[in-house]
Amino acid sequence: MAELKSILSMNAFTPSEDLPKLQGEIKKETERRLKLFGSAAVLFFKEPLEVVKGEGCYLYDVKGEKYLDCYNNVACIGHGHPRVADYVSAQLRQVNTHTRYLNTVVDDYAEKLLATFPKPLTNVAFTCTGSESNDLALRMSMYFTGGTGFIVTSGAYHGDSYLTTMVSPSTTRRKVPDFVRLVPAPDTYRQKPEEVGPNFAKAVREAIDDMEAHGIKFAAMLVDDIFSSDGVFADPKGFLKEAVDEVHRRGGLYIADEVQPGFGRTGMMWGFMRHDVLPDIVTMGKPMGNGYPMSAAVTRPEIIEALTRSTGYFNTFGGTPGAAAAGTAVLEVLKEDKLIENASDAGNYLRDGLRALMADHPVIGDVRGTGLFTGLEMVKDRGTKEPDPVSATLVLNRLKAHHVLTGAAGPDGNVLKIRPPLRFYHADADFFIDAFKASLAELHL
Amino acid sequence: MAELKSILSMNAFTPSEDLPKLQGEIKKETERRLKLFGSAAVLFFKEPLEVVKGEGCYLYDVKGEKYLDCYNNVACIGHGHPRVADYVSAQLRQVNTHTRYLNTVVDDYAEKLLATFPKPLTNVAFTCTGSESNDLALRMSMYFTGGTGFIVTSGAYHGDSYLTTMVSPSTTRRKVPDFVRLVPAPDTYRQKPEEVGPNFAKAVREAIDDMEAHGIKFAAMLVDDIFSSDGVFADPKGFLKEAVDEVHRRGGLYIADEVQPGFGRTGMMWGFMRHDVLPDIVTMGKPMGNGYPMSAAVTRPEIIEALTRSTGYFNTFGGTPGAAAAGTAVLEVLKEDKLIENASDAGNYLRDGLRALMADHPVIGDVRGTGLFTGLEMVKDRGTKEPDPVSATLVLNRLKAHHVLTGAAGPDGNVLKIRPPLRFYHADADFFIDAFKASLAELHL
Repeated sequence: MAELKSILSMNAFTPSEDLPKLQGEIKKETERRLKLFGSAAVLFFKEPLEVVKGEGCYLYDVKGEKYLDCYNNVACIGHGHPRVADYVSAQLRQVNTHTRYLNTVVDDYAEKLLATFPKPLTNVAFTCTGSESNDLALRMSMYFTGGTGFIVTSGAYHGDSYLTTMVSPSTTRRKVPDFVRLVPAPDTYRQKPEEVGPNFAKAVREAIDDMEAHGIKFAAMLVDDIFSSDGVFADPKGFLKEAVDEVHRRGGLYIADEVQPGFGRTGMMWGFMRHDVLPDIVTMGKPMGNGYPMSAAVTRPEIIEALTRSTGYFNTFGGTPGAAAAGTAVLEVLKEDKLIENASDAGNYLRDGLRALMADHPVIGDVRGTGLFTGLEMVKDRGTKEPDPVSATLVLNRLKAHHVLTGAAGPDGNVLKIRPPLRFYHADADFFIDAFKASLAELHL
Repeated sequence: MAELKSILSMNAFTPSEDLPKLQGEIKKETERRLKLFGSAAVLFFKEPLEVVKGEGCYLYDVKGEKYLDCYNNVACIGHGHPRVADYVSAQLRQVNTHTRYLNTVVDDYAEKLLATFPKPLTNVAFTCTGSESNDLALRMSMYFTGGTGFIVTSGAYHGDSYLTTMVSPSTTRRKVPDFVRLVPAPDTYRQKPEEVGPNFAKAVREAIDDMEAHGIKFAAMLVDDIFSSDGVFADPKGFLKEAVDEVHRRGGLYIADEVQPGFGRTGMMWGFMRHDVLPDIVTMGKPMGNGYPMSAAVTRPEIIEALTRSTGYFNTFGGTPGAAAAGTAVLEVLKEDKLIENASDAGNYLRDGLRALMADHPVIGDVRGTGLFTGLEMVKDRGTKEPDPVSATLVLNRLKAHHVLTGAAGPDGNVLKIRPPLRFYHADADFFIDAFKASLAELHL
């Protein structure tokens, strides 16, 4: 269990080790949580944080201490945003029932959302979680192609349902069933830029060959185009294209998992746009309602028809007026406050600042990413690029002491994942950099 | 497609048949919905309803017409309830982030929820939809027992994920995979009361025998204890006990799907309590947040441990402070307004009124149910009890003309499913009965 949690998140609380060290109120509240949630309780940090308030990109704990939130990709337009609260409240008071009735709040939102996609992607199926969207997308690809074979990256995470767990080697400790083929993540740190695309396409080609050799028909390649749980790989722009072309040549679908990169985080509305590719299905979730549970799969009409010809499908809470109200607030604020442009600007500023630390800190192997999705890889040696998960864990816990919340990613958990709400500006980046410098200094790295 | 929809819901809109008959604004809005949602659009009635407002157990359409909602089991404390809107709004403004942090709103709610369950059920896993809860429950039962075999009823619906669709013969047109065994629903209308329990237990025993004969280890029996999609079967109280005992004797788990009966609808907090049985896992959803997307699985610590020993599990939107706020409002209002007691009282009053119509209307074969979950079975002949789905469909559409919204259930779609919000009183029951009488008169039934 401890081992598994360490893969998922280097900064997880481990009851057997960490509970005896706690004292007072935080011990009482931690024990209460463990009693209620049982072994499924997942808490961050060796001393858990009791969060009572959020504003912009900051969270406040029960003692009134303020933390810069560099982990949360859900509250994209900012924690506690009044427009989401107001729109949702008004709609819950008005009506919030299922989509078997017409309601213009729902249809207006669906139109606005679909307007952000390229032409052939004209249908939306509303769901409630990213897992539900990926589960549905995989099923649609099976019905459409008649295949059952899936390709995902070796450190992928695509959800917590039965089916999506099977394509999430980061959760299942890399055991995947026969019909799933793993390809190495496009590690832009350990390959030359010009090799990344061809290598990834080659791995995809070989995976399809192997599938077919074993009598499994290829259905789809499902990738998160920021490769979040693999360790955050964004550049060179366009490296996905060759693999997507291969997928299409072989009769499969390309499912773009935009649960993490979607809604502007990468500096563009959708992450796939950076790669100049056209997905067959796009799935989205986390930031869609700024915390109101909502998600969707967007696709072509003929793909959704392949599903509904074979089975009924309905989602009671999916796309209700309450969800549409939350989603509308998010789209409005993203635009009005120019948060997508800000993601580019603030993200570049943050990465420049972090790269400036590399001269003095050889433990920083690589600073990469796009928009407000940054990966900072910690290594034992820049020559061998050997991962240094121990330093990453130490730094994460020091960062918390300096009032910055973040997490780790990658198969070795040595990549700091810096992913704040999009309402994150130069001053916040400076705050992060100062805290990071102080954390490194304390560890003498 | 038309055939499938008719099984799911006798009052579904069928574009090819029904769209040409529409005119004006409703035609425009219907076309817009079909364009946006594609073939996954599911609309009620031959002329869809544009719903703009809800209050108590009433919905209002775009023309200001008022409809008695006898279909909606989500808005359990009433449509547009201000306490849900206020609590959610305040919490969304305060903070609404994931459960990797501590937050007393979440833990207080978890305590209140768990206090409604018998002792050994002490852990809760929060999810976002009933499908997610059932998907998780099935997975927990597999890890705990080491088995893969499931038993469900022949008209069951348990969700829309890949795994839950496999145990939902009502969606998949009765094709189920090898590891699923169907048992006939406990048809209380076609069996003597004293036979219902033994017959159901016998079918379960034979299903386990057959599974084992085919080398499939039994994992769990999953049943909705009001048998909603099978046609609503509630009595005699306790008929599930013998089957549950058999399940336990054979090493399987009993998963109580309380997505439909839970939160007081049957006149008790949980439907399983009417049967004097103890589930190993209880799943819940629909009414839990009165429309805010939330759900849960409640179980014993050792069952949740069997899952977390083998795989990671986390649900980003599950059990956040926003969900806990909605859930708290529901538990408070259920209690303050005595809605569970009201479900018993108003439900009995409604069924008495409907039974009084049987003398003049032989098409009413049976009126059954408990609390505010009533099934009214329409038959061609009371002697043969032959289902009459045509009359059921006609009545449903006439009821809509008389401003009552309801649906149909059962393998033949001949059972009116009368399932209003729990804020439904004698006057509302009278409104229903009058509309139903008028509908029957128009059909000369």
